[in-house]
Amino acid sequence: MVKYRIVQIGAGNVATHISKAFQEVGHSVVQVVGRAEANARALAKEVGAAYTITMSNIDKTADLYIISVPDSAIPNVLSALPQLSGIVVHTSGSTPASALQKVSESYGVFYPFQTFSKARSISLKGVPFCIEASGADVVSALSQIAASIGGKPVEMDSEQRRWLHLTGVFACNFVNHMFSISQVIAQEKGLTFDMLKPLIRETVSKALEGGPENSQTGPAIRGDSETIEKHVAMLKDFDTEWRDIYRLLSSSIWNTAQNND
Amino acid sequence: MVKYRIVQIGAGNVATHISKAFQEVGHSVVQVVGRAEANARALAKEVGAAYTITMSNIDKTADLYIISVPDSAIPNVLSALPQLSGIVVHTSGSTPASALQKVSESYGVFYPFQTFSKARSISLKGVPFCIEASGADVVSALSQIAASIGGKPVEMDSEQRRWLHLTGVFACNFVNHMFSISQVIAQEKGLTFDMLKPLIRETVSKALEGGPENSQTGPAIRGDSETIEKHVAMLKDFDTEWRDIYRLLSSSIWNTAQNND
Repeated sequence: MVKYRIVQIGAGNVATHISKAFQEVGHSVVQVVGRAEANARALAKEVGAAYTITMSNIDKTADLYIISVPDSAIPNVLSALPQLSGIVVHTSGSTPASALQKVSESYGVFYPFQTFSKARSISLKGVPFCIEASGADVVSALSQIAASIGGKPVEMDSEQRRWLHLTGVFACNFVNHMFSISQVIAQEKGLTFDMLKPLIRETVSKALEGGPENSQTGPAIRGDSETIEKHVAMLKDFDTEWRDIYRLLSSSIWNTAQNND
Repeated sequence: MVKYRIVQIGAGNVATHISKAFQEVGHSVVQVVGRAEANARALAKEVGAAYTITMSNIDKTADLYIISVPDSAIPNVLSALPQLSGIVVHTSGSTPASALQKVSESYGVFYPFQTFSKARSISLKGVPFCIEASGADVVSALSQIAASIGGKPVEMDSEQRRWLHLTGVFACNFVNHMFSISQVIAQEKGLTFDMLKPLIRETVSKALEGGPENSQTGPAIRGDSETIEKHVAMLKDFDTEWRDIYRLLSSSIWNTAQNND
């Protein structure tokens, strides 16, 4: 394995998880650059790196610079960065690769398609890393780096990456919100989220193994409008948006099923 | 274990799964009663039972009668049933127990909180069975029957059961629909549902282990309105309801997070 000397720009969820993964497999994270000093210091300590809060103090000798900051902060980072000779990548689902061309001749995207929370350690095994780069040599280097930490490199252009990111909002963020609503209702009504866990596990196993298009059950797909109306009426005890969500998703389940017939 | 002689009324998803579970642990399913002859015959064959499509031919000597038919068909079943001396239960999340009192002195609810699809074999281990009955002796018998097939008996009244059923629509049906939408988008755009699987697995593990209220990520909870607007614009390629779903769920994620602060 080629070992890389890496500078991590940003010290949030994504930065923390991939820096730790790099360190674990033998790459060197030499420096963490972060605006929030406490975060930068904590991550630097964890991976045995130096840190700075001043972009102009960046280590110019690294092989790879990874920008993992909120999308809206990327322009500021780029205008503060000096010209670099190493590969510069960002980890954003929505930002084009070309945004990076002014800071290095070798640039690209290194987007792990996963949900990261700081406190939770997760494996990167099999996680798709969406790769796009300034040239075939950089694609190849980034693919090897992704594979070195257990990821599955997938070359795709910025447009496909944006679509993948969008699918993740539905499959991750919106799914988690459905769990949140079910939890609040359960707890308000003297039930527990634990009672839901066997149902959730089976729902997900079934969708992953047989495909969600073959797995739908419940009042909406049966066209059971009596139960739907009862449920909507019950939701008057809760946030009004939840009634709208119930109606809209029930309608969408029904319409999707008709289109598939 | 007390062995029961069981008549199964209905031959759909729930009926199939619980009848097979009864048979496997040593209860006897003596008869399947179903309007759709092919389904009744198939299930009867699978569990070694007789079958009939005529309610008046029902075996009056059984210990337990399980009505697993769509909610809207329960009144018709009840008006066709003779008076019975065994325990009569239904498996509905939304129908009160009291609906059954005219057909037997011993009646109750035996509602497995799980999603069943005919072609998929699933374990009932740990699945909550919501139990409500005409008396303590029937509660006790139904609890033992649930436990005998690996279920976790939970006594609750009709109102709590209705709430639990409603939470299941969010945690199962609506979650599966989110997966469906993500799959359609992925496939239309040259990606695959397989790419989403590591994200889905982690999303669910995180919610189950740490609670969904601590697990939300993505543009909505960050208040990243630029990404939200881009995503809404991208969805113009798809069903118009999906744009409404994206907006409404993003708004609800944001509002839920503010209420939790």
